[in-house]
Amino acid sequence: MIGYCQRKLLRIAGVASAALLLAACATTEAPVVRGTGDLGVIIERATGQVTVVESTGRTALAEVPGLGDLSHASLVYSRDARYAYVFGRDGGLTKVDILAGEIVGRVIQAGNAIGGAISQDGRFVVAQNYEPGGIRVFDAETLELLSEVPTVWGDHGQRAKVVGLRDLPGNRFIYSLFEAGEIWLTDLSDPTNPQTQRFPAGRQPYDALITPDGRYYIAGLFGEDGMSMLDLWQPELGVRTILPGYGRGEEPLPVFKMPHLRGWAIAGGKAYLPAIGRHEVLVVELGSWEEVGRIPVRSQPVFVMSRPDGREVWVNFAFPDNGWMQVIDTLENEVVHSFQPGRAVLHMEFTPKGEEIWISARDDDKVVMYDTRTRERIGELPVVSPSGIFFTHRAHRVGF
Amino acid sequence: MIGYCQRKLLRIAGVASAALLLAACATTEAPVVRGTGDLGVIIERATGQVTVVESTGRTALAEVPGLGDLSHASLVYSRDARYAYVFGRDGGLTKVDILAGEIVGRVIQAGNAIGGAISQDGRFVVAQNYEPGGIRVFDAETLELLSEVPTVWGDHGQRAKVVGLRDLPGNRFIYSLFEAGEIWLTDLSDPTNPQTQRFPAGRQPYDALITPDGRYYIAGLFGEDGMSMLDLWQPELGVRTILPGYGRGEEPLPVFKMPHLRGWAIAGGKAYLPAIGRHEVLVVELGSWEEVGRIPVRSQPVFVMSRPDGREVWVNFAFPDNGWMQVIDTLENEVVHSFQPGRAVLHMEFTPKGEEIWISARDDDKVVMYDTRTRERIGELPVVSPSGIFFTHRAHRVGF
Repeated sequence: MIGYCQRKLLRIAGVASAALLLAACATTEAPVVRGTGDLGVIIERATGQVTVVESTGRTALAEVPGLGDLSHASLVYSRDARYAYVFGRDGGLTKVDILAGEIVGRVIQAGNAIGGAISQDGRFVVAQNYEPGGIRVFDAETLELLSEVPTVWGDHGQRAKVVGLRDLPGNRFIYSLFEAGEIWLTDLSDPTNPQTQRFPAGRQPYDALITPDGRYYIAGLFGEDGMSMLDLWQPELGVRTILPGYGRGEEPLPVFKMPHLRGWAIAGGKAYLPAIGRHEVLVVELGSWEEVGRIPVRSQPVFVMSRPDGREVWVNFAFPDNGWMQVIDTLENEVVHSFQPGRAVLHMEFTPKGEEIWISARDDDKVVMYDTRTRERIGELPVVSPSGIFFTHRAHRVGF
Repeated sequence: MIGYCQRKLLRIAGVASAALLLAACATTEAPVVRGTGDLGVIIERATGQVTVVESTGRTALAEVPGLGDLSHASLVYSRDARYAYVFGRDGGLTKVDILAGEIVGRVIQAGNAIGGAISQDGRFVVAQNYEPGGIRVFDAETLELLSEVPTVWGDHGQRAKVVGLRDLPGNRFIYSLFEAGEIWLTDLSDPTNPQTQRFPAGRQPYDALITPDGRYYIAGLFGEDGMSMLDLWQPELGVRTILPGYGRGEEPLPVFKMPHLRGWAIAGGKAYLPAIGRHEVLVVELGSWEEVGRIPVRSQPVFVMSRPDGREVWVNFAFPDNGWMQVIDTLENEVVHSFQPGRAVLHMEFTPKGEEIWISARDDDKVVMYDTRTRERIGELPVVSPSGIFFTHRAHRVGF
């Protein structure tokens, strides 16, 4: 392992002896014995590496290179919060030991992938793939391939791209098939023998979200207005179309970036959804799934995220307003704060209890931190071309 | 540190050399480098010690003695999930390094205490005390006393017992005063300079709960029917009485054990509350706080806990039915399963994602584990007189 400090010194010095580096860096190296509850991983989308951070002192602990194409990468954590499974765009699945700051396993599992999930019991990870279309199941310990579900649909034998994969209670997984317009629910109680139920959904699902309790799965549709909702407590009722106004309807606007549904917000019995192409956040009542309000915001929202206590929702925006963020008060349902954390804000993540938010400013090569109570900037960390930020409390939540 | 294995061998052998013990135990000792996401601590109420466990392999890693009187003990975790702060009944506050399996700090902070909480930012812990009545604030690193709020009330200069302490966003804390019938909200943004707001509440609050988002604080009342609710998003509205039928009213029954409110359940927009003295679980609508149903159960409920996905609520009971547990389906709102995990079930805890539940059977000196999907017993661990079970994901939740 080459630690963060050594790497930095190497960049500065160009060359140095190992002993010198170790001596110079002794006090800043990542300790090998420490809790993992305050750790996190930041994706550097341009360099193929990740940075391991800790949020108590707001420092970087290690840089881990060699993860391939990390554009649109995401990750999940092992149940002991020691290992990150990073899903790269190029089909790479990399297991990173965040305590040691090193790669402990890596496979190229597909040609084109779009993320993954981990089972409720933590024994296996599942990748969702564009090419070849389907999901693949890997042993979390060894990364050995255990099984796969090819998303063959129709009569032509072709496979559909998989989007919106989420883990569910009972070691089940749910995902959507873009070309097929279907939602599949796969039971992996026996990970070597997948059992799949198929549900017809709307046209061209492009992403999906799941409520924090894992009950409602909702896919956004590219090919029609509205969203497709499946109540997983009553799957026998089938898929229902909700929010008929959601999507491309009523005076379509140019869409600069499809919003991410994964980071949606639930607060006070309501969901806050990014409108597509519009300068609005939609407020939807949970359960009835009726739209109950629209909040005007600065630009086209991308991520709409609830502070963990639900009292505020923080929003970032598509180009050309991706240097801005806004804060919505969920009691008043209005914007109460606007600020510019940096250039090209791609992602943000609240610390587990929500006292801080960390924000990736890609074009400033840094992650900036804000106190969510005072809204003051309280720190920053140099990270090359940062995108996704993931803290380890995700290890403990279904569907995250 | 004497590890779990050495201690067990010592008990068996009576005497043994350190070298022999180390050799015999080498393979079962707690590793010093490991993630802390799957760790937990079990209170042994009779021995003054805690057992550190991990839930991936369902094993004990260490026993840590010397914590004093652990009847009615509870604990909170540091934000890195490495340290447990154990609040003993005798006023002891003990900081345990769960990776090393040893005590790293201990103070006797009061004469009679009833639990505690940790601030949102993790920088200090707060104890709630019966004698002398009030809260005390300690540095999480050093256990140094930073400040206190004596709960002096009325004109006589006496202090009220503190119950129902919970942490809130913004490094605030809320708690109830038994004799005073008040709810106090203390802002510890500056932990050396507490700022307190007082709210009149009902007679003799004995415990309290807070919704998972930290919005609603609800105190159970010993001195009258109903509960006192404070909306912390709108504290200026003051305390409101809800559930007028809750409590001692309508044909009071003998109460064998006051139910715990801390472990209440929220599922599908409803709260599931243990009825006092009755063989019922109350179903209450969130927000309106109207009772919408009652579910008959086997005996007087003590802990009513939601499985993390909210689809089921698991219930234990007061003596003489404390060998039983029941499972409620929250879609049908009826009991769907009854079982006998062991004698004197005092507490239970779901693993973070809910795939298992761990149950303390005090009089069988063991903790038993069940698969929550199949409801099959899947393991057990010998623990002397176990009571509270606490997994480290609590480090990441406000009000837990």
